[in-house]
Amino acid sequence: MSEEDASATPGTVRPGGRTARTRAAVRDAVLTGLAEHGYPGLTVEYVAERSGVHKTTLYRRWGSVEGLLTDALDLAGEDTWTPPDTGSLDGDLRALAHEVIDTFGDVSAAAAPTAFIAAAFQSERTAEALRGFYAERFARCESVVQRAVERGQAPPGTDAAAVVRAVSAPLFFRAVVTREPLGTPLADQSAASVAAAVRAGAYLPDTSQDSAD
Amino acid sequence: MSEEDASATPGTVRPGGRTARTRAAVRDAVLTGLAEHGYPGLTVEYVAERSGVHKTTLYRRWGSVEGLLTDALDLAGEDTWTPPDTGSLDGDLRALAHEVIDTFGDVSAAAAPTAFIAAAFQSERTAEALRGFYAERFARCESVVQRAVERGQAPPGTDAAAVVRAVSAPLFFRAVVTREPLGTPLADQSAASVAAAVRAGAYLPDTSQDSAD
Repeated sequence: MSEEDASATPGTVRPGGRTARTRAAVRDAVLTGLAEHGYPGLTVEYVAERSGVHKTTLYRRWGSVEGLLTDALDLAGEDTWTPPDTGSLDGDLRALAHEVIDTFGDVSAAAAPTAFIAAAFQSERTAEALRGFYAERFARCESVVQRAVERGQAPPGTDAAAVVRAVSAPLFFRAVVTREPLGTPLADQSAASVAAAVRAGAYLPDTSQDSAD
Repeated sequence: MSEEDASATPGTVRPGGRTARTRAAVRDAVLTGLAEHGYPGLTVEYVAERSGVHKTTLYRRWGSVEGLLTDALDLAGEDTWTPPDTGSLDGDLRALAHEVIDTFGDVSAAAAPTAFIAAAFQSERTAEALRGFYAERFARCESVVQRAVERGQAPPGTDAAAVVRAVSAPLFFRAVVTREPLGTPLADQSAASVAAAVRAGAYLPDTSQDSAD
């Protein structure tokens, strides 16, 4: 079976085998290309040259640059990452925030995720894949809130999806919208303020109807 | 004095006069072009045709597409917008969040700001202008927190810059990163949770050092 046949028939080669290696090589080339040239400058030709996978294979299996981006995001979503488990809500939220800072506060680490976020403005398919990636990623994070509820550190019914997004949001916001510098104090502040809001019951359903003023 | 002469010599025509009208027409053409074609597709030729301002004038006064974008952002920052003043911290933060939803929850209203955010990924000059725009905009918002402190609705020393960003951040985050739908309940939740965190003292200096767990 040729390399191209294996690539064209996912599942015929065991996980970690030739198909997986090809996919990873292509993914690496996509990330490098995005970081170097951005979405507007990324071509199938570049990915072929960089990955060593023949252009014909790339077109047959991924179809287009959009298909390459989508698969790179799908592959990123297949990792075994789990959210921090420090034993406390404050500790877990702080560790989550620090992971965002470690990525977006570092030019090299930020290159690929930033390029995906940028590409989503220009490609609806990439936007859809990015939505799927973050939906799955934040679903994993919700265990942080579930454990906090079990420990009595968060009220039952706390909106876990909103909590884990609220911790990351001010950091992403500065990195990709207001373009302000990031740092550990900001991460700590974001985590501490969301934890305080959780304890105050601000993430329970209908809390938004109340006003304490 | 020809139209081009007036354009080339800012200040020689009174505010609201021909220079201001030319600048506004050019800005309108830039916004329309960004919304229609995005930054990669925006050209000086397009802006000339759309605005009725001669291409030679555009090149002389603005230099390039980047110069056109920067000036459009500068002009946006010269508006008379003031933050809401509802009489309560909760009400003001909720009104701020609703303004974000009104913009980014509406495809037409979102087009121009989204295009600027997208362009900043590809143009360092645009990123710099965007940073300046948001820095000035959020500086205006800080009066919301100052008034809350004066009314006794927020502890003295509350980090106003962080508070006003934290309210908007989860909404921008969904609009431009996770690509999730927005809505009034999300705006209310963001405002209520930040207000609760403010009351809990989570935006005071060094609060991040504490853990209530």
